[in-house]
Amino acid sequence: IPVSVPFSVDGSNSDKQNEKSMDPDAVAKAFVDHYYSTFDANRAGLANLYQERSMLTFEGQKIQGSQSIVAKLTSLPFQQCKHNITTVDCQPSGAGGVLVFVSGTLQLAGEQHALKFSQMFHLMPTPQGSFYVLNDIFRLNYA
Amino acid sequence: IPVSVPFSVDGSNSDKQNEKSMDPDAVAKAFVDHYYSTFDANRAGLANLYQERSMLTFEGQKIQGSQSIVAKLTSLPFQQCKHNITTVDCQPSGAGGVLVFVSGTLQLAGEQHALKFSQMFHLMPTPQGSFYVLNDIFRLNYA
Repeated sequence: IPVSVPFSVDGSNSDKQNEKSMDPDAVAKAFVDHYYSTFDANRAGLANLYQERSMLTFEGQKIQGSQSIVAKLTSLPFQQCKHNITTVDCQPSGAGGVLVFVSGTLQLAGEQHALKFSQMFHLMPTPQGSFYVLNDIFRLNYA
Repeated sequence: IPVSVPFSVDGSNSDKQNEKSMDPDAVAKAFVDHYYSTFDANRAGLANLYQERSMLTFEGQKIQGSQSIVAKLTSLPFQQCKHNITTVDCQPSGAGGVLVFVSGTLQLAGEQHALKFSQMFHLMPTPQGSFYVLNDIFRLNYA
Protein backbone atom coordinates (compact mmCIF):
# COMPACT_ATOMS: atom_id res chain seq x y z
CA ILE A 1 0.00 0.00 0.00
CA PRO A 2 1.62 3.27 -1.05
CA VAL A 3 1.55 5.88 1.68
CA SER A 4 1.55 9.51 0.61
CA VAL A 5 3.88 11.82 2.47
CA PRO A 6 1.71 14.68 3.70
CA PHE A 7 4.69 16.67 4.96
CA SER A 8 6.56 17.01 1.72
CA VAL A 9 7.18 20.68 1.01
CA ASP A 10 8.40 20.34 -2.57
CA GLY A 11 4.96 20.16 -4.12
CA SER A 12 5.45 16.61 -5.33
CA ASN A 13 2.41 15.38 -3.42
CA SER A 14 0.06 15.93 -6.31
CA ASP A 15 -2.85 13.89 -4.93
CA LYS A 16 -4.54 16.43 -2.71
CA GLN A 17 -5.70 14.99 0.59
CA ASN A 18 -9.35 15.31 1.38
CA GLU A 19 -11.27 14.28 4.45
CA LYS A 20 -12.81 11.29 2.73
CA SER A 21 -9.52 9.73 1.70
CA MET A 22 -7.45 10.74 4.71
CA ASP A 23 -5.97 7.81 6.62
CA PRO A 24 -5.17 9.15 10.12
CA ASP A 25 -2.71 6.32 10.78
CA ALA A 26 -0.74 7.08 7.62
CA VAL A 27 -0.74 10.81 8.39
CA ALA A 28 0.42 10.15 11.96
CA LYS A 29 3.19 7.77 10.89
CA ALA A 30 4.50 10.13 8.20
CA PHE A 31 4.35 13.07 10.58
CA VAL A 32 6.12 11.31 13.45
CA ASP A 33 8.90 10.04 11.16
CA HIS A 34 9.37 13.51 9.67
CA TYR A 35 9.08 15.49 12.91
CA TYR A 36 11.57 13.58 15.03
CA SER A 37 14.12 12.97 12.28
CA THR A 38 14.04 16.71 11.54
CA PHE A 39 14.26 17.57 15.24
CA ASP A 40 17.32 15.36 15.66
CA ALA A 41 19.06 16.55 12.46
CA ASN A 42 18.09 20.23 12.14
CA ARG A 43 15.66 21.72 14.65
CA ALA A 44 15.34 24.98 12.68
CA GLY A 45 13.80 22.91 9.88
CA LEU A 46 10.68 22.40 12.01
CA ALA A 47 9.58 26.00 11.33
CA ASN A 48 7.47 25.15 8.30
CA LEU A 49 5.41 22.63 10.32
CA TYR A 50 3.99 25.44 12.49
CA GLN A 51 1.92 28.52 11.65
CA GLU A 52 1.20 31.81 13.43
CA ARG A 53 -1.71 30.41 15.43
CA SER A 54 0.19 27.25 16.41
CA MET A 55 0.74 26.66 20.12
CA LEU A 56 3.47 24.76 21.96
CA THR A 57 3.30 23.95 25.66
CA PHE A 58 6.80 22.80 26.61
CA GLU A 59 7.14 21.55 30.19
CA GLY A 60 4.29 23.90 31.13
CA GLN A 61 5.58 26.94 29.24
CA LYS A 62 3.14 28.26 26.62
CA ILE A 63 4.54 29.62 23.35
CA GLN A 64 2.60 30.75 20.27
CA GLY A 65 3.63 31.22 16.64
CA SER A 66 6.06 29.39 14.39
CA GLN A 67 8.97 31.78 14.97
CA SER A 68 8.69 31.74 18.78
CA ILE A 69 8.20 27.98 18.87
CA VAL A 70 11.30 27.28 16.78
CA ALA A 71 13.27 29.83 18.82
CA LYS A 72 12.36 27.82 21.91
CA LEU A 73 13.24 24.47 20.36
CA THR A 74 16.56 25.65 18.96
CA SER A 75 17.53 27.24 22.30
CA LEU A 76 17.12 24.05 24.33
CA PRO A 77 20.37 23.47 26.23
CA PHE A 78 21.72 20.57 24.23
CA GLN A 79 23.19 20.27 20.76
CA GLN A 80 22.71 16.67 19.76
CA CYS A 81 19.83 14.40 20.63
CA LYS A 82 18.10 11.26 19.41
CA HIS A 83 14.43 10.48 19.87
CA ASN A 84 13.36 6.85 20.08
CA ILE A 85 9.63 6.35 19.65
CA THR A 86 7.88 3.72 21.77
CA THR A 87 4.19 4.23 20.91
CA VAL A 88 2.19 6.29 18.40
CA ASP A 89 -1.59 6.56 18.76
CA CYS A 90 -3.85 8.67 16.58
CA GLN A 91 -7.49 9.61 16.12
CA PRO A 92 -9.36 11.97 13.78
CA SER A 93 -10.10 15.14 15.76
CA GLY A 94 -13.16 16.29 13.79
CA ALA A 95 -13.00 18.99 11.08
CA GLY A 96 -10.29 17.13 9.17
CA GLY A 97 -7.67 17.21 11.91
CA VAL A 98 -5.61 14.37 13.35
CA LEU A 99 -4.56 13.93 16.97
CA VAL A 100 -1.22 12.17 17.44
CA PHE A 101 -0.07 10.92 20.85
CA VAL A 102 3.55 9.81 21.16
CA SER A 103 5.63 8.24 23.93
CA GLY A 104 9.32 7.53 23.76
CA THR A 105 12.76 8.39 25.02
CA LEU A 106 15.15 11.24 24.33
CA GLN A 107 18.87 10.51 24.43
CA LEU A 108 21.08 13.58 24.85
CA ALA A 109 24.70 13.49 23.74
CA GLY A 110 26.97 12.82 26.69
CA GLU A 111 24.17 11.73 29.03
CA GLN A 112 24.14 8.17 30.33
CA HIS A 113 20.39 7.76 30.73
CA ALA A 114 17.68 8.54 28.20
CA LEU A 115 14.79 10.76 29.29
CA LYS A 116 11.23 9.48 28.91
CA PHE A 117 8.73 11.81 27.29
CA SER A 118 5.13 12.04 26.13
CA GLN A 119 3.97 14.46 23.46
CA MET A 120 0.73 15.20 21.65
CA PHE A 121 0.13 16.99 18.37
CA HIS A 122 -3.04 18.29 16.75
CA LEU A 123 -2.47 18.32 12.99
CA MET A 124 -4.76 20.42 10.80
CA PRO A 125 -5.05 20.27 7.01
CA THR A 126 -3.72 23.06 4.81
CA PRO A 127 -5.40 24.21 1.58
CA GLN A 128 -2.44 22.65 -0.26
CA GLY A 129 -3.36 19.15 0.94
CA SER A 130 -0.66 18.97 3.58
CA PHE A 131 -0.88 19.33 7.38
CA TYR A 132 0.49 21.75 9.96
CA VAL A 133 0.80 21.54 13.74
CA LEU A 134 -1.91 23.59 15.47
CA ASN A 135 -1.29 22.19 18.97
CA ASP A 136 1.85 20.64 20.48
CA ILE A 137 2.18 19.65 24.15
CA PHE A 138 5.43 18.13 25.45
CA ARG A 139 6.22 16.67 28.86
CA LEU A 140 9.15 14.76 30.25
CA ASN A 141 8.00 11.77 32.34
CA TYR A 142 10.24 11.79 35.35
CA ALA A 143 10.86 8.41 36.97
CA ILE B 1 -12.68 34.11 40.87
CA PRO B 2 -15.70 31.83 40.58
CA VAL B 3 -15.13 28.93 38.21
CA SER B 4 -18.16 27.46 36.54
CA VAL B 5 -18.42 23.69 36.53
CA PRO B 6 -18.83 22.73 32.88
CA PHE B 7 -19.51 19.09 33.69
CA SER B 8 -22.55 19.54 35.89
CA VAL B 9 -25.36 17.43 34.49
CA ASP B 10 -28.17 18.81 36.65
CA GLY B 11 -28.82 21.90 34.54
CA SER B 12 -27.74 24.28 37.29
CA ASN B 13 -25.02 25.81 35.11
CA SER B 14 -27.28 28.59 33.89
CA ASP B 15 -24.53 30.78 32.43
CA LYS B 16 -24.08 29.20 29.02
CA GLN B 17 -20.47 28.91 27.96
CA ASN B 18 -19.52 30.54 24.72
CA GLU B 19 -16.25 30.59 22.88
CA LYS B 20 -15.53 34.17 23.85
CA SER B 21 -15.82 33.60 27.58
CA MET B 22 -14.35 30.07 27.72
CA ASP B 23 -11.27 29.74 29.91
CA PRO B 24 -9.48 26.57 28.72
CA ASP B 25 -7.55 26.26 31.99
CA ALA B 26 -10.75 26.39 34.05
CA VAL B 27 -12.44 23.87 31.75
CA ALA B 28 -9.42 21.54 31.94
CA LYS B 29 -9.18 21.76 35.73
CA ALA B 30 -12.90 21.13 36.26
CA PHE B 31 -12.84 18.25 33.79
CA VAL B 32 -9.76 16.55 35.28
CA ASP B 33 -11.14 16.82 38.82
CA HIS B 34 -14.49 15.42 37.72
CA TYR B 35 -13.16 12.70 35.42
CA TYR B 36 -10.68 11.07 37.76
CA SER B 37 -12.80 11.35 40.92
CA THR B 38 -15.67 9.72 38.99
CA PHE B 39 -13.33 7.05 37.56
CA ASP B 40 -12.07 6.17 41.04
CA ALA B 41 -15.52 6.20 42.72
CA ASN B 42 -17.91 4.92 40.02
CA ARG B 43 -16.55 4.18 36.55
CA ALA B 44 -20.04 3.65 35.10
CA GLY B 45 -20.74 7.29 35.90
CA LEU B 46 -18.34 8.33 33.12
CA ALA B 47 -20.93 7.34 30.47
CA ASN B 48 -22.46 10.82 30.21
CA LEU B 49 -19.07 12.37 29.41
CA TYR B 50 -18.91 10.46 26.10
CA GLN B 51 -21.18 10.47 23.03
CA GLU B 52 -21.72 8.09 20.12
CA ARG B 53 -18.89 9.57 18.01
CA SER B 54 -16.47 9.62 20.95
CA MET B 55 -13.30 7.55 20.58
CA LEU B 56 -11.08 5.92 23.20
CA THR B 57 -7.68 4.44 22.40
CA PHE B 58 -6.72 2.42 25.46
CA GLU B 59 -3.22 0.94 25.33
CA GLY B 60 -3.53 0.85 21.54
CA GLN B 61 -7.06 -0.63 21.44
CA LYS B 62 -9.56 1.59 19.60
CA ILE B 63 -13.13 1.78 20.91
CA GLN B 64 -15.95 4.04 19.73
CA GLY B 65 -19.19 5.15 21.37
CA SER B 66 -20.15 5.93 24.94
CA GLN B 67 -21.56 2.48 25.70
CA SER B 68 -18.54 0.56 24.35
CA ILE B 69 -16.10 2.93 26.04
CA VAL B 70 -17.71 2.57 29.44
CA ALA B 71 -17.98 -1.21 28.96
CA LYS B 72 -14.21 -1.23 28.43
CA LEU B 73 -13.47 0.98 31.43
CA THR B 74 -15.74 -0.97 33.78
CA SER B 75 -14.26 -4.30 32.64
CA LEU B 76 -10.66 -3.38 33.48
CA PRO B 77 -9.27 -6.12 35.74
CA PHE B 78 -9.22 -4.21 39.02
CA GLN B 79 -11.93 -3.02 41.36
CA GLN B 80 -10.42 -0.15 43.29
CA CYS B 81 -7.96 2.42 42.03
CA LYS B 82 -6.75 5.90 42.82
CA HIS B 83 -5.40 8.37 40.25
CA ASN B 84 -2.87 10.94 41.37
CA ILE B 85 -2.38 13.76 38.88
CA THR B 86 1.13 15.14 38.33
CA THR B 87 0.66 17.61 35.45
CA VAL B 88 -2.29 19.07 33.51
CA ASP B 89 -1.65 21.05 30.32
CA CYS B 90 -4.34 22.46 28.05
CA GLN B 91 -4.77 24.42 24.83
CA PRO B 92 -7.78 25.54 22.80
CA SER B 93 -8.10 23.12 19.86
CA GLY B 94 -9.94 25.43 17.47
CA ALA B 95 -13.72 25.32 16.89
CA GLY B 96 -14.44 25.78 20.60
CA GLY B 97 -12.72 22.60 21.77
CA VAL B 98 -10.13 22.12 24.51
CA LEU B 99 -7.18 19.72 24.47
CA VAL B 100 -6.19 18.38 27.89
CA PHE B 101 -2.93 16.50 28.45
CA VAL B 102 -2.50 14.71 31.78
CA SER B 103 0.32 12.79 33.43
CA GLY B 104 0.12 11.01 36.73
CA THR B 105 0.11 7.71 38.56
CA LEU B 106 -2.51 5.02 39.03
CA GLN B 107 -2.50 3.08 42.29
CA LEU B 108 -4.36 -0.23 42.17
CA ALA B 109 -5.66 -1.80 45.37
CA GLY B 110 -3.27 -4.48 46.63
CA GLU B 111 -0.39 -3.41 44.34
CA GLN B 112 2.80 -2.11 45.89
CA HIS B 113 3.87 0.20 43.08
CA ALA B 114 1.80 2.83 41.33
CA LEU B 115 1.69 2.77 37.52
CA LYS B 116 2.66 5.89 35.59
CA PHE B 117 0.31 7.02 32.84
CA SER B 118 -0.23 9.75 30.26
CA GLN B 119 -3.63 10.59 28.83
CA MET B 120 -5.05 13.16 26.47
CA PHE B 121 -8.62 14.34 25.98
CA HIS B 122 -10.23 16.46 23.30
CA LEU B 123 -13.26 18.16 24.86
CA MET B 124 -15.94 19.60 22.60
CA PRO B 125 -18.75 21.96 23.58
CA THR B 126 -22.36 20.80 23.74
CA PRO B 127 -25.33 22.98 22.77
CA GLN B 128 -26.21 23.07 26.48
CA GLY B 129 -23.01 24.93 27.35
CA SER B 130 -21.22 21.89 28.75
CA PHE B 131 -18.46 19.73 27.24
CA TYR B 132 -18.14 16.10 26.19
CA VAL B 133 -15.11 13.93 25.40
CA LEU B 134 -14.66 13.49 21.63
CA ASN B 135 -11.15 11.97 21.83
CA ASP B 136 -9.47 10.06 24.66
CA ILE B 137 -6.05 8.37 24.36
CA PHE B 138 -4.55 6.52 27.34
CA ARG B 139 -1.12 4.98 27.73
CA LEU B 140 0.75 3.47 30.64
CA ASN B 141 4.35 4.70 30.77
CA TYR B 142 6.38 1.63 31.57
CA ALA B 143 9.64 2.20 33.40
